[in-house]
Amino acid sequence: MPLLRIDVIKGRSEEELKTLLQAIHDAMVLSFRVPDRDRYQVLTEHDAGRMILEDTGLGFERSHKTVLIHMTTRRRSEEEKQSFYRNLVQSLEERCSVPPEDVVISCVENSDADWSFGHGKAQFLTGEL
Amino acid sequence: MPLLRIDVIKGRSEEELKTLLQAIHDAMVLSFRVPDRDRYQVLTEHDAGRMILEDTGLGFERSHKTVLIHMTTRRRSEEEKQSFYRNLVQSLEERCSVPPEDVVISCVENSDADWSFGHGKAQFLTGEL
Amino acid sequence: MPLLRIDVIKGRSEEELKTLLQAIHDAMVLSFRVPDRDRYQVLTEHDAGRMILEDTGLGFERSHKTVLIHMTTRRRSEEEKQSFYRNLVQSLEERCSVPPEDVVISCVENSDADWSFGHGKAQFLTGEL
Repeated sequence: MPLLRIDVIKGRSEEELKTLLQAIHDAMVLSFRVPDRDRYQVLTEHDAGRMILEDTGLGFERSHKTVLIHMTTRRRSEEEKQSFYRNLVQSLEERCSVPPEDVVISCVENSDADWSFGHGKAQFLTGEL
Repeated sequence: MPLLRIDVIKGRSEEELKTLLQAIHDAMVLSFRVPDRDRYQVLTEHDAGRMILEDTGLGFERSHKTVLIHMTTRRRSEEEKQSFYRNLVQSLEERCSVPPEDVVISCVENSDADWSFGHGKAQFLTGEL
Repeated sequence: MPLLRIDVIKGRSEEELKTLLQAIHDAMVLSFRVPDRDRYQVLTEHDAGRMILEDTGLGFERSHKTVLIHMTTRRRSEEEKQSFYRNLVQSLEERCSVPPEDVVISCVENSDADWSFGHGKAQFLTGEL
């Protein structure tokens, strides 16, 4: 159920993008222990000048490989989120050669009533999920 | 005032997209009883591989007609949201032939101070709305 | 740390878009007193029919210069947000000739644990920020 908006800079091949989405998904499943088909990803590619991610003074250098992940999710604990950040960076580095300083994540939480996965039902309220 | 981000897979004509946006808007107005000009929609089309919506094990098959609606809104009751989901799916099926299993919705709530509709004012705080 | 999604209608030059992003950033820094490198912007251009922003009956006429700003941020006071709206509209009018009635803003708040700026760490929790 987390919905992940993923923004990257243009330049990756179709195959690289596919691997990127899979690596992100696998890190999410591992961190939140959700079903494998709990996958809701939207990827958008941008020209370099349309996606500006600096570093708040932390001393990072961002490259053209930068990945922004904007996640909407039901409540998750601080531990789960931190686990997700770690697993995500590791997965992206190992499988997609994304430098650890190139992964920016922002989460927004919502509630059971805020999701409908089809048929106009709120499946977290109906008991289907 | 709800802001609706609508993501679809490429393949619809301009006319079909126009009808889709109108059908979504009408369902929203009906469900939340807002003014007709309370319309804030942003539509983005994606290549098929850039928008992956699975089913969390619910048993849905998604087609190329899948519609993702990501709504930012002030607080709405569970009843209002569920009404919105039902009206939306019905409207999209009747007017756009979108299968009921192809409509995914996620909501995020915010507050009065979180909106400015123009002129740099927070119209829910100033009393203009 | 605010993450700003900025949506506009196609038609501006690269230089105009660059100035637009800078004007938005400067207004944000001024309003929230954050470091200058606290910059996280994603800009998307849309065909006119894909971005429909009406006026909730307030009597605005939107032009092709309309700018939608969707901000995700840690908690900000009502005063800070209202200051941001004012500074933003002023900055966009003076530097980009965007009419004051063409600036629509929506905010969503999150928490310290909801941000990771790199290396898989939640820098607001670790004390790095």
